Amino acid sequence: MTTVAVLGAGSWGTTLADLLARKGLAVRIWAYEPEVVEASNRRHENPLLLPRAALAPSLRAHQDAGEAVSGAGVILSAAPSHAARAVLAAVADDVAAGTLLLSATKGLECDTLLFMSQVAAQVLPKARFAALSGPSFAREVFERQPTAIVAASTDAGAAREAQELLACGYFRVYSNPDVLGTEIGGALKNVIAIAAGVLEGLGMGHNPLAALVTRGLAEIARLGTALGADARTFSGLAGLGDLILTTTGALSRNRALGVALARGETLADYTTRHRSIAEGVNTARAAGRLAARAGVELPISAKVAELLFEAKSPRQAIAELMERTLKPEQWT
Amino acid sequence: MTTVAVLGAGSWGTTLADLLARKGLAVRIWAYEPEVVEASNRRHENPLLLPRAALAPSLRAHQDAGEAVSGAGVILSAAPSHAARAVLAAVADDVAAGTLLLSATKGLECDTLLFMSQVAAQVLPKARFAALSGPSFAREVFERQPTAIVAASTDAGAAREAQELLACGYFRVYSNPDVLGTEIGGALKNVIAIAAGVLEGLGMGHNPLAALVTRGLAEIARLGTALGADARTFSGLAGLGDLILTTTGALSRNRALGVALARGETLADYTTRHRSIAEGVNTARAAGRLAARAGVELPISAKVAELLFEAKSPRQAIAELMERTLKPEQWT
Repeated sequence: MTTVAVLGAGSWGTTLADLLARKGLAVRIWAYEPEVVEASNRRHENPLLLPRAALAPSLRAHQDAGEAVSGAGVILSAAPSHAARAVLAAVADDVAAGTLLLSATKGLECDTLLFMSQVAAQVLPKARFAALSGPSFAREVFERQPTAIVAASTDAGAAREAQELLACGYFRVYSNPDVLGTEIGGALKNVIAIAAGVLEGLGMGHNPLAALVTRGLAEIARLGTALGADARTFSGLAGLGDLILTTTGALSRNRALGVALARGETLADYTTRHRSIAEGVNTARAAGRLAARAGVELPISAKVAELLFEAKSPRQAIAELMERTLKPEQWT
Repeated sequence: MTTVAVLGAGSWGTTLADLLARKGLAVRIWAYEPEVVEASNRRHENPLLLPRAALAPSLRAHQDAGEAVSGAGVILSAAPSHAARAVLAAVADDVAAGTLLLSATKGLECDTLLFMSQVAAQVLPKARFAALSGPSFAREVFERQPTAIVAASTDAGAAREAQELLACGYFRVYSNPDVLGTEIGGALKNVIAIAAGVLEGLGMGHNPLAALVTRGLAEIARLGTALGADARTFSGLAGLGDLILTTTGALSRNRALGVALARGETLADYTTRHRSIAEGVNTARAAGRLAARAGVELPISAKVAELLFEAKSPRQAIAELMERTLKPEQWT
């Protein structure tokens, strides 16, 4: 029987660990917080991140990451993007060559501008890598609502293994060879989510949101293809699918920040009121640097950066976007 | 000054006529109903289709379509798809060669499986044609909410004229050379809208809807490219943009039908309760015929047809979609 080690007991890591355990696999989950380890093992729950959810009794939580991965044939990393390098480095000595490494982390490492596949290639170069992405609120997967994601890998065999490992009646997994496009989609959507929050905060309707999502995806694809990704990935689950979820689903931290900006708060005000910073803030900065490197224009992301870092007025930003030179729909 | 004749005083035709009149163009609108002609000219309103909206005073309504188009440099057709051929044929003798014909009609002619550009080529072969499409609830355009659409034409000059004619501070128009793709997107979305209503009626969440929209768009693109359209069009305003609007915006007739099916009503029950049939019903039939002609598979549209015409249970249809063979995200 395959043993799977899940690194990170956030809501998504816990949900995937639970799904795998219920499929009959031996699953060990590493949690950073001792109280999460204890609650998982004693009461089969994760009150911190997936409240009121009864976890599979066979799921075993570990406080020691090395212990969790030791001898595991599959590692599923669900650490936050800023912590992924440290988490993988901590277990590197315990990971055998050829181990299947599934990354469920969205977002990039902001200082280096590296995506998770690139971080993994540096830290665990002998693992076989696949990125998991797509429109998947953890709570809904836990409720067994029909969900579809992609497993992206340049190694077709690794993608296939990920599909077979994870798929079940309510969880459909498509393979995709375009790892970079999959990772870009998962990261850049957070910038567009801030813009969606701005429209929401201004009380705007469906036409503006549909235009934002479509033109937002067009610029993500423009950046992605310039960096070497396949344009079709952005029409898929990790692009469009996740963007729809983020801009129309439950209010995320990124959208909430956009709503606050529309109501006249500054980024500094908002950051003071909340303990943590929305992921889209750092991604907006990273997007600007990636766009400069690739030599492409990202009109919406650039306006989001102006809202965040130059306190531009939201109505002014929208007017400037609407009054740009008339263009063909496909431009580069 | 350019004179524009708008054919059809539904909410969309009226809104575009009003927008053009407010831009200073001479606009004549032809309305089928005498009471609409009278209300437009006397009280500057269209109480039937755009209630509580004050229309531009310069807008002139006509009861006679030939009179409306006579001498007009631009004709904007906003007739319903089943009536477009008859409306264009009725004015054919009054239309000069080289007239710009803008079609704001979405959907196809069900008996012939022809899209509006193909109908226009038969009826007004000497006009220069452009299709208007994209995510645009008429009411929101009337309220001057930021909206983006495409003007699609194989004639770049015609597309450019359409852009300049229509664009204003709240209405952004992109050009696109792919007429067929633009028309396919506008028609096929109604089938996916029925499926979205089914998910809604079953009380499903955001993951299933995002998966439906993404995989729905994938199959529209699969059909479209097999018929000769450009795949990129489906990631644009007439594809993805309009699909998002239809599946997440105000409850349309198509989504309402899906909700009813999910609650156990049959198509016959629903049709008895409502005077008119949802456009997606005929389009589901047409999609099946187009798919057979193109030799492609449309898994979701096929299930919608089974729900509509074979009374398949919605939960069974979803289970069958989720349990298909595991596939790559891009398949043909």
